[in-house]
Amino acid sequence: MPISLGELATQFGCELIGDPDVVVNGVASLSGAAPDSLSFLSNVALKDQLRTTKAGAVILRAADADASPVASLIHDDPYACYARMAAVVCPPAVVEPGIHASAVVAESARVADSAQIAANVVVGDRSVIGESVFLGPGTVVGPDCTVGDECRLIANVTLARSVVMGVRGILHPGVVIGADGFGNAMTPEGWVKVPQLGGVRIGDDVEIGANSTVDCGALDDTVIEDGVRIDNLCMIAHNVRIGAHTALAAMVGIAGSTTIGKRCLFAGKGGAVGHITVCDDVIVAARTFLSKDVVKPGTYAASFPATDAKSWARQLARFRRLGDLIDRVKKLEKGGD
Amino acid sequence: MPISLGELATQFGCELIGDPDVVVNGVASLSGAAPDSLSFLSNVALKDQLRTTKAGAVILRAADADASPVASLIHDDPYACYARMAAVVCPPAVVEPGIHASAVVAESARVADSAQIAANVVVGDRSVIGESVFLGPGTVVGPDCTVGDECRLIANVTLARSVVMGVRGILHPGVVIGADGFGNAMTPEGWVKVPQLGGVRIGDDVEIGANSTVDCGALDDTVIEDGVRIDNLCMIAHNVRIGAHTALAAMVGIAGSTTIGKRCLFAGKGGAVGHITVCDDVIVAARTFLSKDVVKPGTYAASFPATDAKSWARQLARFRRLGDLIDRVKKLEKGGD
Amino acid sequence: MPISLGELATQFGCELIGDPDVVVNGVASLSGAAPDSLSFLSNVALKDQLRTTKAGAVILRAADADASPVASLIHDDPYACYARMAAVVCPPAVVEPGIHASAVVAESARVADSAQIAANVVVGDRSVIGESVFLGPGTVVGPDCTVGDECRLIANVTLARSVVMGVRGILHPGVVIGADGFGNAMTPEGWVKVPQLGGVRIGDDVEIGANSTVDCGALDDTVIEDGVRIDNLCMIAHNVRIGAHTALAAMVGIAGSTTIGKRCLFAGKGGAVGHITVCDDVIVAARTFLSKDVVKPGTYAASFPATDAKSWARQLARFRRLGDLIDRVKKLEKGGD
Repeated sequence: MPISLGELATQFGCELIGDPDVVVNGVASLSGAAPDSLSFLSNVALKDQLRTTKAGAVILRAADADASPVASLIHDDPYACYARMAAVVCPPAVVEPGIHASAVVAESARVADSAQIAANVVVGDRSVIGESVFLGPGTVVGPDCTVGDECRLIANVTLARSVVMGVRGILHPGVVIGADGFGNAMTPEGWVKVPQLGGVRIGDDVEIGANSTVDCGALDDTVIEDGVRIDNLCMIAHNVRIGAHTALAAMVGIAGSTTIGKRCLFAGKGGAVGHITVCDDVIVAARTFLSKDVVKPGTYAASFPATDAKSWARQLARFRRLGDLIDRVKKLEKGGD
Repeated sequence: MPISLGELATQFGCELIGDPDVVVNGVASLSGAAPDSLSFLSNVALKDQLRTTKAGAVILRAADADASPVASLIHDDPYACYARMAAVVCPPAVVEPGIHASAVVAESARVADSAQIAANVVVGDRSVIGESVFLGPGTVVGPDCTVGDECRLIANVTLARSVVMGVRGILHPGVVIGADGFGNAMTPEGWVKVPQLGGVRIGDDVEIGANSTVDCGALDDTVIEDGVRIDNLCMIAHNVRIGAHTALAAMVGIAGSTTIGKRCLFAGKGGAVGHITVCDDVIVAARTFLSKDVVKPGTYAASFPATDAKSWARQLARFRRLGDLIDRVKKLEKGGD
Repeated sequence: MPISLGELATQFGCELIGDPDVVVNGVASLSGAAPDSLSFLSNVALKDQLRTTKAGAVILRAADADASPVASLIHDDPYACYARMAAVVCPPAVVEPGIHASAVVAESARVADSAQIAANVVVGDRSVIGESVFLGPGTVVGPDCTVGDECRLIANVTLARSVVMGVRGILHPGVVIGADGFGNAMTPEGWVKVPQLGGVRIGDDVEIGANSTVDCGALDDTVIEDGVRIDNLCMIAHNVRIGAHTALAAMVGIAGSTTIGKRCLFAGKGGAVGHITVCDDVIVAARTFLSKDVVKPGTYAASFPATDAKSWARQLARFRRLGDLIDRVKKLEKGGD
């Protein structure tokens, strides 16, 4: 959407150095930008690219403005400012109210007039679809769900049943919310399924990546608090609670009944075992799992980065012979007595 | 579904201490229970919650009955008994026979009159849908599949082709069964796809979690035996066999042509490499993978729980210098000669 | 499809030892083959099975022909030759041109006459579907996508938007391409979504396994080059580039902005952190992740295979006391001075 630098500066509280009437109509990286592109400099390692950019304007810190050959929008946090401006310059697809002829909506469901229900969507009994919601093609909303205003379920999303979403949520394709948790009781005749009867409660402004799953609770609800961000192929088990503004990168798994605090960060393939409590402001490194309660904010790690395979084989052999080494040291200690 | 304590005691072989005419109509945890709720005490750590519960009745062991302020249903295994009673008190949705107008069923397919084919379901050529089956919205059953009586495919499930399921199976949303295995032959011109021509055979009483995948066999079938439980986002590769009553927690991966025994348990993110055989009654710890045949029942592990990142960095550095340490000990040993 | 050994030998450049008029009409393993089956011997460990096979013909190396009791098709690479012949003997389902009545195709989309659009497919605005493409049931092609000639999207696949696929690609059920990357800027008010505006470009002859995800780029495109093979439940983050003929086994994750070279192999659950560059011809062992640039072709590893849990507990304790051991050796060294 075309917008002038003057309007952007006013709307987002930036100082503008340059012509307020210049119009941008797209966003781009510094090196890929054209004269109608808005760009940004956040990582100072890219400052060289700033000097030669052809962007219409660059969002940057005051300290970097001197190096800009083009108009500058000054902001203390150029990346966050860029994120907000980009949503204006390149807005998401407009919701086109109405229910597609191929969609199947239960009689007992309630769909706001301003919502868009796309082709082949199914909405189940007693579910409520809020204002300006977008239910993308192939999406299935099971019974007893609530989808808050302005949520977007992109395509082929499944809310199994009893899922309550706050406002402005985004669920990417293939996401499954509210499927049964993994509850089984062993008996002499084999596993007996433990009925999973809770639901899922999702706060406002939550985004969940493609093919991630959030199971319903066994008796109580699984809870995702406001502002949580979950990447692709993550697994949130039954009765988990994820604190507000926590972010989980791809392929993270949180096992059943675990509580994760607010503003935590899990890097890719990280996770936590079940039935533990993790305090606020915990960072978990890539491929690291928490095995017990965490009561102290900070960064936690336990992974081995790759090395060449021959060195690794030697290293693994040494590791396995640690007991021998300890015995040898003991022997030396005795000999030295 | 409302049911009296007397009926429950009779149906499930419990001793009842209390009024047989009291009716329960839901289940709940000890602390969350109302007077019409059935609850249970399995984990003795929760015994304090028993003393103050407001449940209509509690399933518990004889030894705990004295502490119950309400009616008691006595059972040696309260959790399994609860699982079975909960399925009666809170039964799954009733199957409503019929084929939705929006479903597309191939002429050569056979669908039992008692089956429910929901909105936007597709059933392919020559497939057979058994009695009281539920095919949920958006589910695709490809050609040459058999779905046994009373199976429930919740929503957006895909059986690609040549999948044979026994009775009473449950497939959660996003599950994909029978997609091609990962078979590729390297040539000077690049990879050549190896046609994947086998099917998948699934036994009775198998439950598979959201977004898990079970590939078809290359030539023979991939096999999931009776009573297997698979959690979300698991991967079962081509030509794997999973023994009866084995349970795989979330994000477990079993590589191609591996055979897993009966009653094995894999914790989250565990797995096994390809072309190995694992005996019955093997337990695999979280994030642990089996790299060779296992012939002895028992528990296997190999994972490092998280520690604070600074300690981990030191620990990792020590690990990498193990060779130096061994050399130093050798030198000491020589010096001591 | 029935075909004579003579035709196979001619078409694929094999020497035939045996009757050229014998017809095969299926493929099978050596031990499972019937007289109308084509089989192969690639792994010499199976040579015993060759001696008793009942196959109509066996593809094998010249050196193994003496041991064959049946007709032999001689080839230097029997597995690759088998892969190619099997695709002729057991061809994939024929594409039946036409758009199913239940499919919903945008007016601005273009679908080749030879393409098959199956039941409940949705094709979005301005998307282009090439010659002989198969869009399987439940597949959603969002706006601004191009699906090259002869691609097969098996079922319930989602191309979110702006995905360009080359020719002959195969996407298995549940695959999601072009969903938003995980871009978030932290602010005092919580995460701000960074609009994901790039697309995904996929080369020719790419196959992607069930429930894998490839995110769109933030500004530029995510790129999968020609001939890449990706197994199930893999995650390719935004702005990644995967080099030609690289293969990723199941559950591999490649974090954002990383470039992987050509002809690399990642074993199951392997991966790479973000913002690194990996050269051509790198092999990554199971459950191993690359944490920095790789400039030298070769094999990289860093995983611990399972051991029995008691031994592991001891080993883990020894590992944690490495600092003590080093101190003790230091003390011995000092004492020995």
